[in-house]
Amino acid sequence: MDSSKFDWIEKARFCYEDLLKRFITMRTISPDPERKGDIVDCAAQAAELFEQAGISSKIIETPGYPIVLGEHIRSNDHPTAMIYGHLDVQSADPAEWDSHPFEFLNRSSVYFGRGTTDDKGPTLAAFMTVREAIRNKFPINFQALWEFEEEVGSTNFASFFEKNNLSIKPDVVLVIDGLWIDRDRPSIRYGLRGGLGLSLVLETGERDVHSGLAGGLARNPVAELADVISRCHDARTGYILIPGFYGAVRFLRDSRSETSKEIKRLLDCGFSRENFTRDLGLRSIRKMSDKEAISALKLLPTFEVHGIAGGYSGPGIKTIIPHRAEAKISIRTVPDQNNDAIFDLVSNHVRRLNPDVAVIEEKSLDYFYTDLSHEYFSVFAESVREALGKELFFDRSGGSIGALSVLAKNLQAPIIDFGLSLSEHGLHEKNEHFDWGQASAGMKVLTEFFRKISVKK
Amino acid sequence: MDSSKFDWIEKARFCYEDLLKRFITMRTISPDPERKGDIVDCAAQAAELFEQAGISSKIIETPGYPIVLGEHIRSNDHPTAMIYGHLDVQSADPAEWDSHPFEFLNRSSVYFGRGTTDDKGPTLAAFMTVREAIRNKFPINFQALWEFEEEVGSTNFASFFEKNNLSIKPDVVLVIDGLWIDRDRPSIRYGLRGGLGLSLVLETGERDVHSGLAGGLARNPVAELADVISRCHDARTGYILIPGFYGAVRFLRDSRSETSKEIKRLLDCGFSRENFTRDLGLRSIRKMSDKEAISALKLLPTFEVHGIAGGYSGPGIKTIIPHRAEAKISIRTVPDQNNDAIFDLVSNHVRRLNPDVAVIEEKSLDYFYTDLSHEYFSVFAESVREALGKELFFDRSGGSIGALSVLAKNLQAPIIDFGLSLSEHGLHEKNEHFDWGQASAGMKVLTEFFRKISVKK
Repeated sequence: MDSSKFDWIEKARFCYEDLLKRFITMRTISPDPERKGDIVDCAAQAAELFEQAGISSKIIETPGYPIVLGEHIRSNDHPTAMIYGHLDVQSADPAEWDSHPFEFLNRSSVYFGRGTTDDKGPTLAAFMTVREAIRNKFPINFQALWEFEEEVGSTNFASFFEKNNLSIKPDVVLVIDGLWIDRDRPSIRYGLRGGLGLSLVLETGERDVHSGLAGGLARNPVAELADVISRCHDARTGYILIPGFYGAVRFLRDSRSETSKEIKRLLDCGFSRENFTRDLGLRSIRKMSDKEAISALKLLPTFEVHGIAGGYSGPGIKTIIPHRAEAKISIRTVPDQNNDAIFDLVSNHVRRLNPDVAVIEEKSLDYFYTDLSHEYFSVFAESVREALGKELFFDRSGGSIGALSVLAKNLQAPIIDFGLSLSEHGLHEKNEHFDWGQASAGMKVLTEFFRKISVKK
Repeated sequence: MDSSKFDWIEKARFCYEDLLKRFITMRTISPDPERKGDIVDCAAQAAELFEQAGISSKIIETPGYPIVLGEHIRSNDHPTAMIYGHLDVQSADPAEWDSHPFEFLNRSSVYFGRGTTDDKGPTLAAFMTVREAIRNKFPINFQALWEFEEEVGSTNFASFFEKNNLSIKPDVVLVIDGLWIDRDRPSIRYGLRGGLGLSLVLETGERDVHSGLAGGLARNPVAELADVISRCHDARTGYILIPGFYGAVRFLRDSRSETSKEIKRLLDCGFSRENFTRDLGLRSIRKMSDKEAISALKLLPTFEVHGIAGGYSGPGIKTIIPHRAEAKISIRTVPDQNNDAIFDLVSNHVRRLNPDVAVIEEKSLDYFYTDLSHEYFSVFAESVREALGKELFFDRSGGSIGALSVLAKNLQAPIIDFGLSLSEHGLHEKNEHFDWGQASAGMKVLTEFFRKISVKK
């Protein structure tokens, strides 16, 4: 193994730390509308950074915060790698932190500050690698997409693709945002569930009435919604009772060998019901084997009741019959379920059960799934092996991330969701940090990957 | 008809109004702990009033507010009539009233003030009649029970009977608290449902977890409680699905002619689904005929969900899996259901459905039922006919009143729940009032009834 190809990394360390420091001090808190100025300023500095690296840049306005697009196109004959990262962060309360969240602290190559691991540190590590590849005239084109709305659900990311044509379509997309299983187990997520929120609302009167006066004849909207919910899914198993609901679920149509392979792949990422139960502070979980549990968590859709509003919920009992109830529900969807079709199935089912219940559509996010059979995945796994001497793990998540499904929908390219964070880095928490070990590991893997794909095409 | 027997009434009018004025100005607000002094003072004045009328009195302390017991025993050979009334009142906001709630206003024999109709006015009207009967040496014994906790659920009324022996057991109990159907239709309630509160609590973890991370495997306590509730009763019909629940329901065991008679008697009190729906501001009611509706409202038990606490109930959707949920439930019981037995049935059923759900017993009140076949009821109806030229209506209520079931449980006597209020008097509302028409009507009916029963025995 020619390890001299990684020599640039240790030499770039101080430069990387300076760059990270500069970006950590910018308070790009997207959930806080007061911070718009900081975000606009950060976008301008990001664009300047691109230009200095030989990447032509555009700040593209959206109804929310801008997206910075960088392109370095050498030749249409070269493969094109798109790098996605985000520079917005969650808020941070200085009173809770040991150091100030917006003053960069480098303690023996452990970097403290809001955004160090989510996602400025990893984004800038990828940028350093791209800059180095350009300097070395790798026969490869680059596109960079830096977003400022990831922490608020990537609200305008889809319309960005609708309104802006990329000059060239990428051959591979690297999403530099997410966790490794642990320091020894780098991983990518090749699938995420989609999400579909809905409210069931039932109004049976103008005001609450007394249950002594009206009980028996007056309808009870909380009880009727409980009835509807219990006929939509079996709370004891999680099984969804809506006819046709599972029809499009790919996992259930796959061959047995295929599903076994997938379950094995996910179990290899490390899973035990005991750890799951303990780590989440649960008293008990649904009765399932490990295989069933991993399928329930990552491969199958869910029907979840987040709460039922309406009626009395204070201490003791208040003998009213409520006049209105609202159930907050979300459905997680999986390949190949279509959120609109699922909404129609659910609302038709609810209408059949109780025609007076209004079904209101809330936020919807598509599932993300990228086909691992593309050769770039094996090339990426080889790159990890060669750069780090470690195996790459392939994982799926039960959650939903807007940006990933938007990228998958708009780009016909394999999407490699390779973050550099570790769970102990404390994403969204106090004392968030990142470290040179993970930053340099990312630089190595990407250097190797760029080298390999530029040779390939 | 010898109408001279009612001559005393018009002569007593000013005396009654003076007495009512004196009691209205006492702020005997039992829900307000600050008013203990007013209640203690009022109890002392009530006892003095009894003594002046030749009724020996005792102020009996309870852990809450006192009960004033008056007894006028002429002979063990005479029948004994017990008169129940209460002198505590609901609070009142002077800003909402046209006159001051605690300054008696007599506007052409309409009496304004908090407590005029509930229940000082009717209680004092009954007192005047008893005083007159004693003056005229009616061969009849009297007992008076004046309570000061009716507006807070008669908390200590049951223990009063456990701890205090009455010197003589009454032959008839007159409860002077409640409504006529309207001014032309005097009525008594011979039955009330009981009530049994319970909370179902399910805790599945220490904290809420993210539905993307844990959805599918983690249990959902809101959904599980919805499931339990839907297996306890059918929300669409109100039918209770708990095995054995209806076993003790007398109405369902009665002969067909008996139930038809009862339903007719209740429908005669005036009922229409249209008025019910409109008056309570309901959009729709359960699908039932008038006969089914009156049974559901007054003769059959109910299972009511007052609310489900736990989970997210704010605006929009929050994708959490709650860690705890609590359903607030009450069951209305009817003759011959025993609240303890019903609680056991429900909790065993819930335990079978979901062993992790804790069933917590809340407040319990027994049903009230008094057998109309006792001859005193026909004597009372005759008294109404003779005194007022009106028919007496026999009604039941779906609600629960602690004092009535305590009286029924402790006294083996027919209980005649004959209030003098009209719904337009505004019980518990602003501008509560009473009127001489109803006060004098009550005096006439009671005069006639005392006359008739003193002759009878």
